[in-house]
Amino acid sequence: MHFELKHTDPHSKARAGLVHTDHGTIETPIFMPVGTQGTVKGVHQQELRDDVQAQIILGNTFHLYLRPGLDVIEGAGGLHQFIGWERPILTDSGGYQVYSLATSRKITEEGVRFQSHHDGSYHFFSPERAIDIQRSIGADIIMAFDECTPYPCDYNYAKRSMHMTHRWLKRCITQMDSTEPKYGFSQALFPIVQGSVYPDLRKESAEFIASQNAEGNAIGGLSVGEPDEDLYSMTDLVCSILPADKPRYLMGVGTPVNILESIAMGVDMFDCVMPSRNARHGMLFTSEGTINIKNQKWKMDFSPLDVNGTAYVDQVYSKAYLHHLIKAKENLAIQIATIHNLAFYLALVKEARARILDGTFRKWKDEQVKILGRRI
Amino acid sequence: MHFELKHTDPHSKARAGLVHTDHGTIETPIFMPVGTQGTVKGVHQQELRDDVQAQIILGNTFHLYLRPGLDVIEGAGGLHQFIGWERPILTDSGGYQVYSLATSRKITEEGVRFQSHHDGSYHFFSPERAIDIQRSIGADIIMAFDECTPYPCDYNYAKRSMHMTHRWLKRCITQMDSTEPKYGFSQALFPIVQGSVYPDLRKESAEFIASQNAEGNAIGGLSVGEPDEDLYSMTDLVCSILPADKPRYLMGVGTPVNILESIAMGVDMFDCVMPSRNARHGMLFTSEGTINIKNQKWKMDFSPLDVNGTAYVDQVYSKAYLHHLIKAKENLAIQIATIHNLAFYLALVKEARARILDGTFRKWKDEQVKILGRRI
Ligand SMILES: [Zn+2]
Ligand SMILES: [Zn+2]
Repeated sequence: MHFELKHTDPHSKARAGLVHTDHGTIETPIFMPVGTQGTVKGVHQQELRDDVQAQIILGNTFHLYLRPGLDVIEGAGGLHQFIGWERPILTDSGGYQVYSLATSRKITEEGVRFQSHHDGSYHFFSPERAIDIQRSIGADIIMAFDECTPYPCDYNYAKRSMHMTHRWLKRCITQMDSTEPKYGFSQALFPIVQGSVYPDLRKESAEFIASQNAEGNAIGGLSVGEPDEDLYSMTDLVCSILPADKPRYLMGVGTPVNILESIAMGVDMFDCVMPSRNARHGMLFTSEGTINIKNQKWKMDFSPLDVNGTAYVDQVYSKAYLHHLIKAKENLAIQIATIHNLAFYLALVKEARARILDGTFRKWKDEQVKILGRRI
Repeated sequence: MHFELKHTDPHSKARAGLVHTDHGTIETPIFMPVGTQGTVKGVHQQELRDDVQAQIILGNTFHLYLRPGLDVIEGAGGLHQFIGWERPILTDSGGYQVYSLATSRKITEEGVRFQSHHDGSYHFFSPERAIDIQRSIGADIIMAFDECTPYPCDYNYAKRSMHMTHRWLKRCITQMDSTEPKYGFSQALFPIVQGSVYPDLRKESAEFIASQNAEGNAIGGLSVGEPDEDLYSMTDLVCSILPADKPRYLMGVGTPVNILESIAMGVDMFDCVMPSRNARHGMLFTSEGTINIKNQKWKMDFSPLDVNGTAYVDQVYSKAYLHHLIKAKENLAIQIATIHNLAFYLALVKEARARILDGTFRKWKDEQVKILGRRI
């Protein structure tokens, strides 16, 4: 993998780049749909490619490790083969889900022991194990095993945790260096900056991470409940330290507005469950603002889902039809809303990239932030 | 609407024909996917057209009348417009669901009074009302309002009910003749043969129905729990009486084997919830027999879903992947299985038609019945 910085916006810190992987090139800034259990919920792989126009998707190590399990994924020849997705895949390290989903868990310097929420069986993740598992899954981009601190987080806990994450990173790098990819294509490791909302910790962590000279770098521990003010100030601070010639991935962010503001600070990659999760509750991100399609006001509105939408669902289905489907608890409602929301996110970052390249990003971003923050 | 009989098989009573409607031509024999509430569950309209290759779909009057309601469907300009489906639509009369789903119901000579299972509100369906509602929905083919007797059914009840269905048919015809289509395209009325499993009643009903000289005719009251032996003997008897120059629609049938055997008796049109309902439980109809994809035996089977399948899902997804998705309760499993099963049914009737036209139907049908009846 390597990153090619094509252009930096003169009126902000936004960047346009290319991430070259063995499964193809990703145009940045990019949004990565979340494919938790080997599927972006309710979306066929061909819809993801042709309608959503996803360039890279995310897989969750914790979920895939438990189900279908590594024997099945290895048997298939890796996750790309197993799910029928030929473009790049990024996997998280599993740490975040171990902390949030596992039935019981115990964190030590060695790693995390936890119980499966499916069957109560015991498992152990360590930095080495997290690398091995992601080797087996066959991600193009592997995330380092870290501790993602919650919000709020005591200063001393955040500091101790960050130092452990740094020690774990060294073990991840050693494991990467001493193992080989399993499926004939290369895999890159991204370390993760932690430090909660404390500027001195974020600075220390960003400097440590930058010094590792990884192929790309991530900002973790944000979008966990902190105010937008903290999200932005930490992101801005960390971006000012992380190397410019490597892609920067802001984990778990966010709303369309969060994404535009973070692009303006120099972030290149994003993932978030929000477009797909909110779709399941009938909330659509549109070019005119956010709408709740369950609202009675859409019952007789036969206009297209999103008149400026880029996906076929935006043009062939009306608001009234989607309103009917979601009231009738038809799963097609979720399918349509998910494709719409994901396509909206992908179209948004695509437009941002075009604006960065033609020098109009800053002005366009300031306008969009006002429009996209509305509820209509 | 008119029917063009292209060929009758010399070795069976199977027929190949064309049903011309204002929304396009249907090649018979044909299978019609069921789109209960204005959607074939979990399938996008473009998948239905391009992947399943459905030529006509069915809408349920009872469901559509209650939700979204006629105001919405009329506001959209009819069901085709509302759901974004440009090919023909057939609607049932609502009777069957009133009997099976409504909270309380009372059948009189005048019609049926019932309570909505959604909100307890009272409604009244009569032959006239069923025609008016189907006019508002805008179906290309409208079904007469009948009473579908259950199985088993007492002879005297079946006889009285059949005579009422005949009287109701006369009222449906009068209502059709005194009303106009609402959306500028023509609508045809199909009467329904009843008579339970009693040959003398079936004969009387078929003769009465045939004498009405409708544009097409249906066989109802079968596939309600009776043995296959009765299904076939009643179908064969009724087909021998219904006019050869009009399409024959066997309602609610059935398995792939049922469909092939009924085609051999001269049936032209079918609908059934089985391919979509069974898909939701992981049962796939394949070219090699029926499989339960939940079975552990498919866990590591990376072969295509159906090596002879005609839909893209058959080739891009493996049995192991579908097994994983259904075990993980991912909705994509249902989406994939539904597209597969419906595409399988459509490919089956398409192949039957080709075999009728080239004279090899009978031999092929006898072979297929053995293969498709297997559980693998
Ligand atoms: Zn998020
Ligand atoms: Zn059926």
